[in-house]
Amino acid sequence: MLKLYSGARSRALIIQWYLEELGVPYELVMLDMKAGQHLQPDFLAVNPFGKVPALVDGDLKLSESGAILLYLAQKYDRPTSIEQQAQLCQWVLFANSTLMGELLIETTRERALPRLMRPLNQRLGQQPFLLGAEFTVADVAVGAALSFVLGTLQLDLSAYPHVQAYIGRLSERPAFARAMDMKPPTSPSPAAEPA
Amino acid sequence: MLKLYSGARSRALIIQWYLEELGVPYELVMLDMKAGQHLQPDFLAVNPFGKVPALVDGDLKLSESGAILLYLAQKYDRPTSIEQQAQLCQWVLFANSTLMGELLIETTRERALPRLMRPLNQRLGQQPFLLGAEFTVADVAVGAALSFVLGTLQLDLSAYPHVQAYIGRLSERPAFARAMDMKPPTSPSPAAEPA
Repeated sequence: MLKLYSGARSRALIIQWYLEELGVPYELVMLDMKAGQHLQPDFLAVNPFGKVPALVDGDLKLSESGAILLYLAQKYDRPTSIEQQAQLCQWVLFANSTLMGELLIETTRERALPRLMRPLNQRLGQQPFLLGAEFTVADVAVGAALSFVLGTLQLDLSAYPHVQAYIGRLSERPAFARAMDMKPPTSPSPAAEPA
Repeated sequence: MLKLYSGARSRALIIQWYLEELGVPYELVMLDMKAGQHLQPDFLAVNPFGKVPALVDGDLKLSESGAILLYLAQKYDRPTSIEQQAQLCQWVLFANSTLMGELLIETTRERALPRLMRPLNQRLGQQPFLLGAEFTVADVAVGAALSFVLGTLQLDLSAYPHVQAYIGRLSERPAFARAMDMKPPTSPSPAAEPA
């Protein structure tokens, strides 16, 4: 069975959400980060950088939430072509690198927000999900990042109603609620920690 | 033929380096960002976010440097399994999300540097490239990010000699030099711009 390592306020919640969407069973291992469990040899053998989330699937040890999402998509959701796979990858990178990067850095935030949100708002006004009619791993990655923007950074998205409606739609998905139910009580959002 | 969109000080240089490694011909389109060419309808049809690099390959329009790298790896370098593909993806995300993210944010930089560099130094003391004996797209992504750290952020990496030697080895590769020769004269490094 898949083994997913998490900790308080970890991005592992994003992976849990996607695993619930896929209906794939997994074992959740909660590390006590305050006690330094993520820096013990046991876990460093899984991820030498000592970061969660990390996934173990047989011989594969994988870290980086975006890479874990894309691996699960590849294994269980099977993109039909390398072009479709590339699109999924583009949105995961957009979420974890561009969106999180530019909005976390205070000096770039104000200028970046409309540049990122305007095209996103336009796209989501035309179709329910990022790639069209179907929910994909792209929505998990971008949805989690947006929910972080809205929740933790408290940025005002009222000028982008389609983005707001999209975040609302995603949060109403049963798999999202199931993942949130499994969260530790201190974690307020699926992407409560930037790293 | 592949069409790669770039601009002054763009991450497109990273893609050029990898295309030179692969020996894949491509057409380079330099946008005049100062004149706002990246915000004109022609280019917004390629990438609605108006960012370079962007790649056009037939019907596929792809943005995000990490996604472009992984697409090219998938198409031309053909990872042998989804597990190997996942490892490549992990290192690209590590470079573009974790490494760039944590080191660009001044408040996290000092604490993040040893946590990121120590395991990297250990790994590169045991093997010449990130995945072992062979150069892969992981080295392009991480190498470019490290060269940015060293060049633009001017962080001191002297405590991590294997990382320094690795950056040196990468910069001596003929494909790297060929890509740098094609750079516009104002671009000092393969990753001169964070976004």
